[in-house]
Amino acid sequence: MTTAIQTEPKAPARERGAGEENIFRVACHIFRERGYHATSMRAISSTLGMQPAALYYYYPGKENLLFRIMESAIDALTARVLEAINPADPAPQRLRQAIGAHVTAVADHLDELGVFFQELRALSPKRREVIQAKRDRYEHIFRDILQDGVDSGELTRVDPRLAGFVILAACNWLYSWFKPDGAYRPEEIAAAFGDMLLHGLLP
Amino acid sequence: MTTAIQTEPKAPARERGAGEENIFRVACHIFRERGYHATSMRAISSTLGMQPAALYYYYPGKENLLFRIMESAIDALTARVLEAINPADPAPQRLRQAIGAHVTAVADHLDELGVFFQELRALSPKRREVIQAKRDRYEHIFRDILQDGVDSGELTRVDPRLAGFVILAACNWLYSWFKPDGAYRPEEIAAAFGDMLLHGLLP
Repeated sequence: MTTAIQTEPKAPARERGAGEENIFRVACHIFRERGYHATSMRAISSTLGMQPAALYYYYPGKENLLFRIMESAIDALTARVLEAINPADPAPQRLRQAIGAHVTAVADHLDELGVFFQELRALSPKRREVIQAKRDRYEHIFRDILQDGVDSGELTRVDPRLAGFVILAACNWLYSWFKPDGAYRPEEIAAAFGDMLLHGLLP
Repeated sequence: MTTAIQTEPKAPARERGAGEENIFRVACHIFRERGYHATSMRAISSTLGMQPAALYYYYPGKENLLFRIMESAIDALTARVLEAINPADPAPQRLRQAIGAHVTAVADHLDELGVFFQELRALSPKRREVIQAKRDRYEHIFRDILQDGVDSGELTRVDPRLAGFVILAACNWLYSWFKPDGAYRPEEIAAAFGDMLLHGLLP
């Protein structure tokens, strides 16, 4: 598993230069629109108006590019949510913070996270394992808050795994229907999701 | 749009014969495991131990096969949910009936619905339109119950579209984590989802 990671270029996603950033952004968009398998490196380089060789200079292969997108997506999502949570706050409030950060992250990185939620199967087993491990750690942020809240009595006695699935499903699924110019702002969605998940649908 | 439908074989999915049913089942499984684009008709016929020509006899092309799977999936899901709902019951109870039927349908047709939730993009625009229209009608079953409940005061004043997204996301996402031999039975999941969505996480 570590071998696969070591073959990736060393620079973390944050340090992409302007040229690389542009490739990354365009590739995210095309992968999300058409799907990974339906997209060739040639289609990406042609959209960018560059020679395929220039694209391969940054990303030695299509799957490497996909892996970099997925890693960047889950790293960014995790960082956003961890930054948003105040560990001193009660569990229900921390849940709202986490939901809010996830929803706005999906809205802000729609292409990147759209690819992340749709293309896991397209990765080779070793790279998929790396991403799955990161996704599991991410999901545990939510389960830990739920477990805390159940233990402290701040939340009702739900199964934190099942409750985590409901919350994450609502937040993840957003990539499939959210429109930046649509009827709902991310903050509205986050507040509505938080209200609904904490208070339920009964009056 | 009607042209695309008319090119499909006339027999509804329900009337597949034993041979066709076997092809259908195996194709669903391979598409879900490997993804539509990563699967060739040759791979399907070879798994079935049949000549590619025999496969093409039933399904004139891979996208035709995908369309038939997706149509069968959404038709079956819609039928299950409509059968489960008692129109005379109060809105909260109808929501539980719909959630229960959706959850058990995903558990019972994991491959078919897994393909349905993952491969919409792979369809040609005309066929995608047909499936999207059916999916929209399906989603409206949930939104209509929510709207009824809001109007009657049986449910809190949520936005039926946003609430529908949360409920359907929880139910749809199931395809990605449900294991037939896993820790949860479909009925348990349905009850937990119903409790959580109706009563919320606060005690």
